[in-house]
Amino acid sequence: MCELLAMSANVPTDIVFSFTGLAERGGVTGPHVDGWGITFYEGKGNRTFKDACPSSKSHIADLIKSYPIKSEIVVSHIRQANRGCVSLVNTHPFTRELWGRYWTYAHNGQLSDYKGKFTVSRFQPVGDTDSELAFCWILESVVNHFGEQEPENMQPVFDYIAKLADEIRELGVFNMLLSNGIDLMAYCTNNLCHITRRAPFGKATLIDTDVVIDFSQETTPNDVVTVIATRPLTNNENWVVLSPGDWKLFRKGELVLG
Amino acid sequence: MCELLAMSANVPTDIVFSFTGLAERGGVTGPHVDGWGITFYEGKGNRTFKDACPSSKSHIADLIKSYPIKSEIVVSHIRQANRGCVSLVNTHPFTRELWGRYWTYAHNGQLSDYKGKFTVSRFQPVGDTDSELAFCWILESVVNHFGEQEPENMQPVFDYIAKLADEIRELGVFNMLLSNGIDLMAYCTNNLCHITRRAPFGKATLIDTDVVIDFSQETTPNDVVTVIATRPLTNNENWVVLSPGDWKLFRKGELVLG
Repeated sequence: MCELLAMSANVPTDIVFSFTGLAERGGVTGPHVDGWGITFYEGKGNRTFKDACPSSKSHIADLIKSYPIKSEIVVSHIRQANRGCVSLVNTHPFTRELWGRYWTYAHNGQLSDYKGKFTVSRFQPVGDTDSELAFCWILESVVNHFGEQEPENMQPVFDYIAKLADEIRELGVFNMLLSNGIDLMAYCTNNLCHITRRAPFGKATLIDTDVVIDFSQETTPNDVVTVIATRPLTNNENWVVLSPGDWKLFRKGELVLG
Repeated sequence: MCELLAMSANVPTDIVFSFTGLAERGGVTGPHVDGWGITFYEGKGNRTFKDACPSSKSHIADLIKSYPIKSEIVVSHIRQANRGCVSLVNTHPFTRELWGRYWTYAHNGQLSDYKGKFTVSRFQPVGDTDSELAFCWILESVVNHFGEQEPENMQPVFDYIAKLADEIRELGVFNMLLSNGIDLMAYCTNNLCHITRRAPFGKATLIDTDVVIDFSQETTPNDVVTVIATRPLTNNENWVVLSPGDWKLFRKGELVLG
């Protein structure tokens, strides 16, 4: 099992508060001691911080907690290895370029009997996880279906990816985060929830460590910020829990599909 | 103009000493104030730290200088923008997956009249630099020539890439670093040099800041470490200066081609 965290916002927003809660699950309040990673989009560019060390003990995680990188889309993952050895190459999120955009993906869950299903050649996994192979298969299927140029309307692309995710879900647990730097998709098998924060902003209290934030001090009245997580990160807000097979698409913090 | 730095070593080695010298050129001893990036390979995996801030003022560069990440291959770049706005998306190194490996690339120089030359579809640039477009064209040409599966013998691949680089050099200045996580290629138009350090190790003094290192205290007798840079980083060692059109391939610190 692993824990996922993502954010979609209409203004560059830092994720220090949520990441602080998540990082505790990497070895303090949770068993996810096999590395972690986080991708920040800034415009079309992105950067990923990864470490094979537990997030609660990582120097790089300390940097993320202390240095507020502002981003419109974030995808993050902390890992407890089930398939694949513990190493940097198997640490999520994974990124590939497609249609002149960086696509970033993280997976929580475990798949079985998948090797015959995921035939790939153009997008090949570098590590040996079921997760990365499934990501490569999704992108390869998308290219085979839609061609080499980005469609003007992306809705059919995400509808198609959701159908692929339905197929993957037949092989096991497949909770997925996926972004192309504009849209953020969340697909649920069993554990995924989200919250959209907007004015009037209030206070929130982290479940995993003793931190309270007053979002009204950190935001402007027009900010819209959606956070997606495996389990709720705060104990005084109403998180929307997704059902098996549910998927959502967010853009600039707002729900646009699903 | 930009500055390049790379390392190939036969044991995981930290690059703190060399990066400390390079980072000074990002706003202190050099004019390269438009961001920087560094990619560390650890086995087949890699991780890239990037920042659009000058390396001499970057929190993340401070982390790299203080936290010795040990790696067998490093590719780094500090940037003074000539083409393309200053943003994360245009910050080197660039990475793409090919044949189940991460290929990482950085370029120093400037190209002209290149848009008709670099036709790409499978590998598309995300930013708007000549550098990234040239990288995409190299990979696309390699796939078109060698197919979807990695050749057993990689020597013809690097020979072919050198021929592509010769063509690119006709369009301007093209100093290039390229690695697939096993081999490290350096291609020179006008500014590139390297040094291979092995036993008996001695002391080295950085040119750009007041730091001396005694490599005999940091190494074992079997270590072989090659460093490649735009200009020599130390003032008491013999750096080998490449000539226009020269290229070298290093593996585990040793020169294997060129």
